[in-house]
Amino acid sequence: MQKARFITFEGGEGAGKSTQIALLAEYLQKNGRDVVCTREPGGSVGAEEIRSLLVRGGNTRWDRLTELLLFSAARRDHLVKTIFPALTAGKTVLSDRFHDSTVAYQCFGYGFDETVYQQAQNLYHLIAGNFVPDLTFILDIDPLIGLKRSIKRQGNDEQRFENMDFSFHKNLRAGFLKLAAENPKRYVVINADQTVAQIHQDIVTALRERFK
Amino acid sequence: MQKARFITFEGGEGAGKSTQIALLAEYLQKNGRDVVCTREPGGSVGAEEIRSLLVRGGNTRWDRLTELLLFSAARRDHLVKTIFPALTAGKTVLSDRFHDSTVAYQCFGYGFDETVYQQAQNLYHLIAGNFVPDLTFILDIDPLIGLKRSIKRQGNDEQRFENMDFSFHKNLRAGFLKLAAENPKRYVVINADQTVAQIHQDIVTALRERFK
Repeated sequence: MQKARFITFEGGEGAGKSTQIALLAEYLQKNGRDVVCTREPGGSVGAEEIRSLLVRGGNTRWDRLTELLLFSAARRDHLVKTIFPALTAGKTVLSDRFHDSTVAYQCFGYGFDETVYQQAQNLYHLIAGNFVPDLTFILDIDPLIGLKRSIKRQGNDEQRFENMDFSFHKNLRAGFLKLAAENPKRYVVINADQTVAQIHQDIVTALRERFK
Repeated sequence: MQKARFITFEGGEGAGKSTQIALLAEYLQKNGRDVVCTREPGGSVGAEEIRSLLVRGGNTRWDRLTELLLFSAARRDHLVKTIFPALTAGKTVLSDRFHDSTVAYQCFGYGFDETVYQQAQNLYHLIAGNFVPDLTFILDIDPLIGLKRSIKRQGNDEQRFENMDFSFHKNLRAGFLKLAAENPKRYVVINADQTVAQIHQDIVTALRERFK
């Protein structure tokens, strides 16, 4: 694992992504890696400002295409200001969500929409060319359990996505699993309905397997 | 002039667009038209929030593509929330800047860039399909004169574009004139180095000629 790596964490609400990213970062640092932890939407000064437009307000605040353009603008800033420089410096970048979340939330969550899917793919290609994560962990959990965990968190005012109806979250889960099934080389599905320690262990095992 | 009309005003800084829009709105209202005056970036609640990200901060705050995506997101919101509903209601919409400003500023201002031009056109097509203004006034003025006027205005903290170097503003002017020359059916170039009353008269004359 000497090479720069871009590793993304995906999944529904309450799957434990941020906890697992912190644990993996610690593990990698102990093994001598320089690690940058980041998140989407956000991950750079400008992208965090765009994030604040996206995560607050009602579900219908933006039409689907406006939302897609804002996510793309934020992702472009994140790539240019945070991800590309860190990778150029040989670091390992761990991102809490990336383009797959756009695909799952915008294209699968509302019911699969081929037009939106093509728009999302075209916009991603526009901002990132052929760049993709080296490895993507899907933290998979029944949305009933994940949402309960997510709602328990205190002081969370970013409830726009959590407030969407339950079928949305079921579609989301199915979307992530479909992405993983179509490209098993890049994706690893992790059972997130386990103890924090066990999930971490599964992630480390998969990471070693992929990057041995 | 019973039909809904979408009329845009373009030009460099200090060309007098907002004054002329106010005068034309008054004229049209006196002639029985329902008029909506709007502007870009902005023109809707969400787009004004995106505007605040675009017009403040240093020249290099966003890379060119991020900027293009933010303008496109703002324009999409402006279209969906303000322009389309007003036109559907049979109103005349006067907009202080629209897509031509993106082309002039982003594609011509920094020196013509074919790649950015194609990106801008593709993004416009994505958000607006084949919709274009019915008429576009280019308020043309020597940037030396326009910039002096613009700088005179007090309390203007949106100086990001005004702070760009002078060659930028010369490229901008040439860009607008090139757009007009290529499509004389849609564009009318107005000499903006005249009195406010004379410019208004030229605009009214051109409008009557086009929509007679």
